[in-house]
Amino acid sequence: MKKHIQHREFLFDIYIEDTDFQGFVYHANYLKFFERARSNFLFENGIFHKELVKKNLAFVVKRAEIDFLLPAKLEDSLVIQTSIEKKSNARMVFNQLIVNPEHEQVLCRGVVEVCLINLITKKPQIFPNDLLLIFNKGEPNE
Amino acid sequence: MKKHIQHREFLFDIYIEDTDFQGFVYHANYLKFFERARSNFLFENGIFHKELVKKNLAFVVKRAEIDFLLPAKLEDSLVIQTSIEKKSNARMVFNQLIVNPEHEQVLCRGVVEVCLINLITKKPQIFPNDLLLIFNKGEPNE
Amino acid sequence: MKKHIQHREFLFDIYIEDTDFQGFVYHANYLKFFERARSNFLFENGIFHKELVKKNLAFVVKRAEIDFLLPAKLEDSLVIQTSIEKKSNARMVFNQLIVNPEHEQVLCRGVVEVCLINLITKKPQIFPNDLLLIFNKGEPNE
Amino acid sequence: MKKHIQHREFLFDIYIEDTDFQGFVYHANYLKFFERARSNFLFENGIFHKELVKKNLAFVVKRAEIDFLLPAKLEDSLVIQTSIEKKSNARMVFNQLIVNPEHEQVLCRGVVEVCLINLITKKPQIFPNDLLLIFNKGEPNE
Repeated sequence: MKKHIQHREFLFDIYIEDTDFQGFVYHANYLKFFERARSNFLFENGIFHKELVKKNLAFVVKRAEIDFLLPAKLEDSLVIQTSIEKKSNARMVFNQLIVNPEHEQVLCRGVVEVCLINLITKKPQIFPNDLLLIFNKGEPNE
Repeated sequence: MKKHIQHREFLFDIYIEDTDFQGFVYHANYLKFFERARSNFLFENGIFHKELVKKNLAFVVKRAEIDFLLPAKLEDSLVIQTSIEKKSNARMVFNQLIVNPEHEQVLCRGVVEVCLINLITKKPQIFPNDLLLIFNKGEPNE
Repeated sequence: MKKHIQHREFLFDIYIEDTDFQGFVYHANYLKFFERARSNFLFENGIFHKELVKKNLAFVVKRAEIDFLLPAKLEDSLVIQTSIEKKSNARMVFNQLIVNPEHEQVLCRGVVEVCLINLITKKPQIFPNDLLLIFNKGEPNE
Repeated sequence: MKKHIQHREFLFDIYIEDTDFQGFVYHANYLKFFERARSNFLFENGIFHKELVKKNLAFVVKRAEIDFLLPAKLEDSLVIQTSIEKKSNARMVFNQLIVNPEHEQVLCRGVVEVCLINLITKKPQIFPNDLLLIFNKGEPNE
């Protein structure tokens, strides 16, 4: 059963480094923005990648689908809306939208599947309890 | 009707700039590598982005699906296999595999949908004849 | 005569995209951070690169000196202190420090020389009056 | 005593990812290109960053000076000329030029100071013998 667990907003700005010769944001950079929003969600919940890596744990992206709907432009101030869908105790899917709040336009839509791997064995791991607690927040029946 | 029109190989190396703190290639960078291979395919056929832009034409990525199967590592020498599938006279799909030839492993698989837009009107355009000729190469019945 | 005209602070965070396989920030990225702080200084003064480019004007970096003193790390929250030194009506030098406020440590020091060029003639231009006004702020004798 | 020890050439191409909204290469990326050339020099001599890191050793850039002379453009095929100057048994300076061979123009000049650090102690290390041997190549009197 699919459960959309949380909905978060992350604000960011477009700088020169993000653009390409066409004058818009280079397409690969949207994946970076999505990752900033996911990391920010974790920070806010007290989870830090640098702490996980000390336990030989790391989040890895397994699959991404991205629809590039409208180009983001230099000096745009944008919002990423992230909702999380727990697929299993070892796999999560983030549905992410990059929105220009000025025009209420969705510029880019991403579906990013993430799992946690053990950096030694390279194998996927069940999420530890503190992570599961975060991903289940607002889910009284679980 | 789907037509796999061409099959090309592009070689490249992994440098420090491509890696992240986990010791592997940062996931967004695979989209850059795919784009290098597509651009290289165009160069070899005498098509240059900088010439297109003078005519207010530009290729834009409309959609991408990426499966991150195995991590690419620092100092890997990799190959991208690209096959092109013409969906219409205004839309193309590139099926791209990043392969480590040493271990004959597929590290990453991408499906990247591209169209040509007019930079003034921002609207998709039918591919000009010289491009269509290239995308149809090896297609005796067309 | 050298004049240190303004002193500004810009806050930013380190994300996975900024790191490399050594676990620290990749050295080239400090130049991106410096540029974000300079752009932010311009935004706050109502100057936008996208407006300049419509007039065929663009800031270009002519020279940079960077001292990498201590490594920035994943999930660091850092501050860039920027002071501006007008060399002439066509050339500015930004002195920029990346500071970790938690430990009051200077991680990186940059001296970045910038001029404004005409994108058509490719030649340096005298700064327009609105820019000169901003760069002279707090300079009653000019 | 300054000794210019070696002179190497590295070829590379400019892709869309390297450009910015001004239509030229984004300034921070020249540092990436310089690093590719230095890494390539090491590969050719059988030195791999991924082997060094297993011994807790890593090259770090301590200082860089860059003169941006002429803009590199999309689809340029460029050459980096690298000469190495050993400052001591723990510090090296690379003098690097990015050249457009078509017009015999120097686009960018970099002076990059590198040392080897121990990733555990974070302290600079004397270069191991195999590295010193490489850096001293062509130096019969050493």
